[in-house]
Amino acid sequence: MNASDFRRRGKEMVDYMADYLEGIEGRQVYPDVQPGYLRPLIPATAPQEPDTFEDILQDVEKIIMPGVTHWHSPYFFAYFPTASSYPAMLADMLCGAIGCIGFSWAASPACTELETVMMDWLGKMLQLPEAFLAGEAGEGGGVIQAHSSVERAGLIGGVKLKAIPSDGKFAMRASALQEALERDKAAGLIPFFVVATLGTTSCCSFDNLLEVGPICHEEDIWLHVDAAYAGSAFICPEFRHLLNGVEFADSFNFNPHKWLLVNFDCSAMWVKRRTDLTGAFKLDPVYLKHSHQGSGLITDYRHWQLPLGRRFRSLKMWFVFRMYGVKGLQAYIRKHVQLSHEFEAFVLQDPRFEVCAEVTLGLVCFRLKGSDGLNEALLERINSARKIHLVPCRLRGQFVLRFAICSRKVESGHVRLAWEHIRGLAAELLAAEEGKAEIKS
Amino acid sequence: MNASDFRRRGKEMVDYMADYLEGIEGRQVYPDVQPGYLRPLIPATAPQEPDTFEDILQDVEKIIMPGVTHWHSPYFFAYFPTASSYPAMLADMLCGAIGCIGFSWAASPACTELETVMMDWLGKMLQLPEAFLAGEAGEGGGVIQAHSSVERAGLIGGVKLKAIPSDGKFAMRASALQEALERDKAAGLIPFFVVATLGTTSCCSFDNLLEVGPICHEEDIWLHVDAAYAGSAFICPEFRHLLNGVEFADSFNFNPHKWLLVNFDCSAMWVKRRTDLTGAFKLDPVYLKHSHQGSGLITDYRHWQLPLGRRFRSLKMWFVFRMYGVKGLQAYIRKHVQLSHEFEAFVLQDPRFEVCAEVTLGLVCFRLKGSDGLNEALLERINSARKIHLVPCRLRGQFVLRFAICSRKVESGHVRLAWEHIRGLAAELLAAEEGKAEIKS
Repeated sequence: MNASDFRRRGKEMVDYMADYLEGIEGRQVYPDVQPGYLRPLIPATAPQEPDTFEDILQDVEKIIMPGVTHWHSPYFFAYFPTASSYPAMLADMLCGAIGCIGFSWAASPACTELETVMMDWLGKMLQLPEAFLAGEAGEGGGVIQAHSSVERAGLIGGVKLKAIPSDGKFAMRASALQEALERDKAAGLIPFFVVATLGTTSCCSFDNLLEVGPICHEEDIWLHVDAAYAGSAFICPEFRHLLNGVEFADSFNFNPHKWLLVNFDCSAMWVKRRTDLTGAFKLDPVYLKHSHQGSGLITDYRHWQLPLGRRFRSLKMWFVFRMYGVKGLQAYIRKHVQLSHEFEAFVLQDPRFEVCAEVTLGLVCFRLKGSDGLNEALLERINSARKIHLVPCRLRGQFVLRFAICSRKVESGHVRLAWEHIRGLAAELLAAEEGKAEIKS
Repeated sequence: MNASDFRRRGKEMVDYMADYLEGIEGRQVYPDVQPGYLRPLIPATAPQEPDTFEDILQDVEKIIMPGVTHWHSPYFFAYFPTASSYPAMLADMLCGAIGCIGFSWAASPACTELETVMMDWLGKMLQLPEAFLAGEAGEGGGVIQAHSSVERAGLIGGVKLKAIPSDGKFAMRASALQEALERDKAAGLIPFFVVATLGTTSCCSFDNLLEVGPICHEEDIWLHVDAAYAGSAFICPEFRHLLNGVEFADSFNFNPHKWLLVNFDCSAMWVKRRTDLTGAFKLDPVYLKHSHQGSGLITDYRHWQLPLGRRFRSLKMWFVFRMYGVKGLQAYIRKHVQLSHEFEAFVLQDPRFEVCAEVTLGLVCFRLKGSDGLNEALLERINSARKIHLVPCRLRGQFVLRFAICSRKVESGHVRLAWEHIRGLAAELLAAEEGKAEIKS
């Protein structure tokens, strides 16, 4: 395939992408396929001679799409949102063409420097404390990381991890943390790392940073603040207070690839002292040395992360921030929050249901009043019907349904339809249960 | 930006990508910028109101491109190749539009299943032992990983890592390994993990798997084989013997994103017993549970890796393998190997130079006969002239220049020009040194 073929096929692909996203509402949000569906549809080995592009594009519709869970359908309310925007796609196309690997400053200076500046832009959008910004002579700074799991890090590091019991609002508070620290110290353990979560995955609850922060500070414990989903909302002044206390943190991270229209992956992390990271990870083979290395002027992001290679991901941030503007991004966040409150209101109006956690941002945790079994059966009916897609969680041991506002294209009408669908399935389920109860009695 | 704007801008971007790659030879391979060049060119904060796409595209040329090291220029001979092909770019565009996060089978079945089948295709292209393939009921299988560093893993795991001294051809051999194991055991340590490298970064040397493998097997040590760069060559029958002994390995990995035309990132790893991975990493929050989970029929790749999220990267493999065909990929590898031998022949013909390691694939390690200082000065001249880009390495303590065949577009003419350029700079340097010597004497 040469450049002129690519001009032709690339433009066809752009149309296919736009068609897909424009028409996504017409596709069944969750696929019907059974495990192992794909292997029989594909040859057992790679072809010796080239296939045509037409064949491949046909196979995308025939083989791939039937097995895709459509994360950007307005009927997708599962997990958390994952970002999808046209500016991010344009930037990713450019990133693919430049195709540089930005492990050191010299490996592609623009790749490193745009990332540093974009992480400052984003930090300022969140009103992060100055100490987290790189600026021209700061000791802190931001980096785009592969996002990962705290629990897994504990497993790998051979570190004992303890969950701190939360309060009635699912928040970590001073007393519970203090108690855990005392118990650990009495047992001869050395507490050195606390992770506070702003916007938990289960129910989007918020740990109390203003209580937890000073304790960590006093005890000389590294405080990491994880706001994977909720962090994007902090660009709105009315939600920024949820981040208060971040000034006590040593590191902070959230995922613009969830809710800030920057396509996956883009997990933004800041530290106050970049030498804490580079001191832990630095390795310097000769083939990566370059003349500016010792100057103190440049950033070699390979020392900030586990893998060596890195794509030019800050282009996505640059395109998205510029083409939406901060106001456009704020409007997007606010719309999602409003839609979740619309769904909350529906649930509250129906006495058979209950809301299980405070609705702060774009997630509503709810359930039928009744047993876990009843709610498991409801979720089973919802996901089997394939009209919408939800996932559950457990809160205080109870099985709970999560309704997350996810799609860039979701509107009030979709939320209302989803609620009516859920209510209808619940009515069927309750009628069936009553039927069973009558037969028994 | 709506779908119809994207149709227009996406097609402009396709043309920009094609223009960039068609015209890349005309751009200076290594940029002139100084550290910190970018920040003053960009506003200190994100705009409140949207910028236009025209502004952004202009800024790409004005702000980004002057700071880009052009990895796909035919005058880029640094590090190792990084893949760039049009089919991979098309697939990445599609991956961006689908935008699913494939952490579990249910999160997007096609994303998981295509990856499993593509890793089998690729494993068969390499003639990997059956035990590494997933097939329909295998215990092994492949996964696309973030590529990472063995040394860093040691740092994080708190594990002592020892480099095994290599033989005259920079290969790990039985005796040196056995000696290190005995010494460790005598010191009360428990050796449990050996990494053998096929195609080292410095000089593309090959550890002797047929010697190392049986020792690991006997001592019950996990043998990991890393063929990051060289692995792609094993799809050619004439290079497959370099992989002999992989049957002793527990895990094997290489990076199709280096030399197999699948754009970064795509690091392919296989294990013989997938339960070894999932047993180490498995964590099961309720919000990720799905109905097929316990069936034994499906793969949840999140248990195979550190991060949770994953892009639909197997699309790139599918597009590339199909649009090149195995024969097209083999031809690509062979052409690069031939070009490195052309460069080797140039070096061998010039008595002032020496070749420092056997040339097996696409890398030539060479130097001026003389001091390290002389060779450092030569590299400085080469990279300052900006016509070509090289990086150095150290072999047995000596400073050595690496000439790696990298670009998809590099031809004999570029290699010849590069050599003549290097020879010219060397002549200037040697004359200057002689001048200095005369003044001194």
